[in-house]
Amino acid sequence: MSIQRVLTGITTTGTPHLGNYVGAIRPAIAASRSSDTESFYFLADYHALIKCQDPAAVKQSTREIAATWLALGLDTDKAFFYRQSDIPQITELCWILSCVCAKGLMNRAHAYKASVDANVAEGEDQDKAITMGLFSYPVLMAADILMFSANKVPVGRDQIQHVEMARDMAQRFNHIYNNGQPMLTLPEFVVDDNVAVLQGLDGRKMSKSYGNTIPLFLPEKQLQKHINKIKTNLLEPGEPKDPDDSTVFQIWKAFATAEQTAEMRQAFADGIGWGDAKKQLFALINAELAEAREAYNDLLARPQDIEDRLQAGAAKARTISAPLMEQVRAAVGIAAIR
Amino acid sequence: MSIQRVLTGITTTGTPHLGNYVGAIRPAIAASRSSDTESFYFLADYHALIKCQDPAAVKQSTREIAATWLALGLDTDKAFFYRQSDIPQITELCWILSCVCAKGLMNRAHAYKASVDANVAEGEDQDKAITMGLFSYPVLMAADILMFSANKVPVGRDQIQHVEMARDMAQRFNHIYNNGQPMLTLPEFVVDDNVAVLQGLDGRKMSKSYGNTIPLFLPEKQLQKHINKIKTNLLEPGEPKDPDDSTVFQIWKAFATAEQTAEMRQAFADGIGWGDAKKQLFALINAELAEAREAYNDLLARPQDIEDRLQAGAAKARTISAPLMEQVRAAVGIAAIR
Repeated sequence: MSIQRVLTGITTTGTPHLGNYVGAIRPAIAASRSSDTESFYFLADYHALIKCQDPAAVKQSTREIAATWLALGLDTDKAFFYRQSDIPQITELCWILSCVCAKGLMNRAHAYKASVDANVAEGEDQDKAITMGLFSYPVLMAADILMFSANKVPVGRDQIQHVEMARDMAQRFNHIYNNGQPMLTLPEFVVDDNVAVLQGLDGRKMSKSYGNTIPLFLPEKQLQKHINKIKTNLLEPGEPKDPDDSTVFQIWKAFATAEQTAEMRQAFADGIGWGDAKKQLFALINAELAEAREAYNDLLARPQDIEDRLQAGAAKARTISAPLMEQVRAAVGIAAIR
Repeated sequence: MSIQRVLTGITTTGTPHLGNYVGAIRPAIAASRSSDTESFYFLADYHALIKCQDPAAVKQSTREIAATWLALGLDTDKAFFYRQSDIPQITELCWILSCVCAKGLMNRAHAYKASVDANVAEGEDQDKAITMGLFSYPVLMAADILMFSANKVPVGRDQIQHVEMARDMAQRFNHIYNNGQPMLTLPEFVVDDNVAVLQGLDGRKMSKSYGNTIPLFLPEKQLQKHINKIKTNLLEPGEPKDPDDSTVFQIWKAFATAEQTAEMRQAFADGIGWGDAKKQLFALINAELAEAREAYNDLLARPQDIEDRLQAGAAKARTISAPLMEQVRAAVGIAAIR
């Protein structure tokens, strides 16, 4: 089998939390070590501008996310790790794709339609507060994917449509400008339904929008404090507890070996106290993260090193985007006069 | 009065004709010599992709338009003359503006609404055959204008709205990201209702879409042939003719001095024959264009020289676009990690 290119964007809003780590970052870094894939991870700062008009927040998030992935050991010699805004070909391709993308396709985007429905339900103009960035964001996402000839794009179910739209644009482009031959590679979505979805402090899915997260690289004491805040029931020490109804146990499972999970299941049956269980949970998580946390803090103290790694990653990524862009330009009729 | 920046885009579709010359190119080149303006002329090849999916045609048009402006003596040491696609900051700014541009604004664009009305009238889906390029083209046009802090944008009446939209986007950007201070300059439209509109071979406005044009740099014999094809009435030599009802006279006026115009008016009254009038018209136009035609053909034989001039123009233009883009990036939170 030929080497598959797998591409993942990380929107630079917010601080990485345990849910991001378990559901996305840890598996992605593991996958990047596979010998039959070439992994592309990028900091999607142009996408961040759609959701976030606070420049300090975008900057801070970019810094934290970059430091997180590097601290967790992403092998940037093997994987491609870059900031979207360091690849000037992406917005250029985005424009060129706009010219082959039917507006009707965007009208049917789930995210846009959901915003319209919400406006209509409130008796507002259907496009109220909807920017062109929000409306045309699947075109930018298509440019992100097609710019690097990605074969696979791991996504949640709500993002399948975007990958299909990227396919559609690639197909139209190839049809109009390349006799149907694949100058742009048709990507496939990959949905892993086994992706671990971590619960947050309140038992709902851990998510920035619920305000129930445990940030990934909290200092030890803060991490302990956050873990202590996980919602539990009122059962006393000595009373048997249902692990499958417990956020503490659910998070435990995400960090434990099979053996440790079985042991904790038994401890729940034996009536372990919540305080004790949380202490053990803290120890387990801290053991997994302590080294990376130190690396993270080291990196944040040497921001130029983060920047240098991103610049090197962008230079490497441009060795792919620049030649493809030359082909695309020539195909559409944008070329030096000779 | 401070120096005003005046910006004009030239979409790279089609071959320049006498109508373009009289109505746009000749006055623009004259205006570029004024000491109180800094003129920006650019080959709008990204815009061409909206209308034209024939790469050879876009390339050919780019070459012809560039050679035309240079052959007619555009002073590229004074004016900025560049190809849109050589300024990578333009599509980047286009994306950033998308994120501050209300979709509702685009819904109200005349050109888009006209396409929708035509679809609805034919009982089709309202967005049939409308691309995202067509829909979002005012955002790209805003990026073209704002990227160079243009103060004035000469437009036809149908384009006033686009300049107003660019103002709107600049205002929103400044409001959100710069405390309302003008990082992006608010442009003004300039409509010159005295712009000469030349008639074509059939008496309607000379326009590529009517197929009634006289290409600007036809070889002499071809030029004569085209002029001979100008529609006239059946009046014989010796019969008095109405100059104000004559395409021959209308074109004559566009090239003649006031004195020559008065003489031809008299000749019409005296019953000049159509053949004779056309012969004189050919001589007049040819006298104005012969030298430039030679320069044009010389340039087309040395395409690398055209390319070099465009590259030099782009380098000069980027000395303006690159620093402004750095400011814009910093304002929205896209910056090196430090």
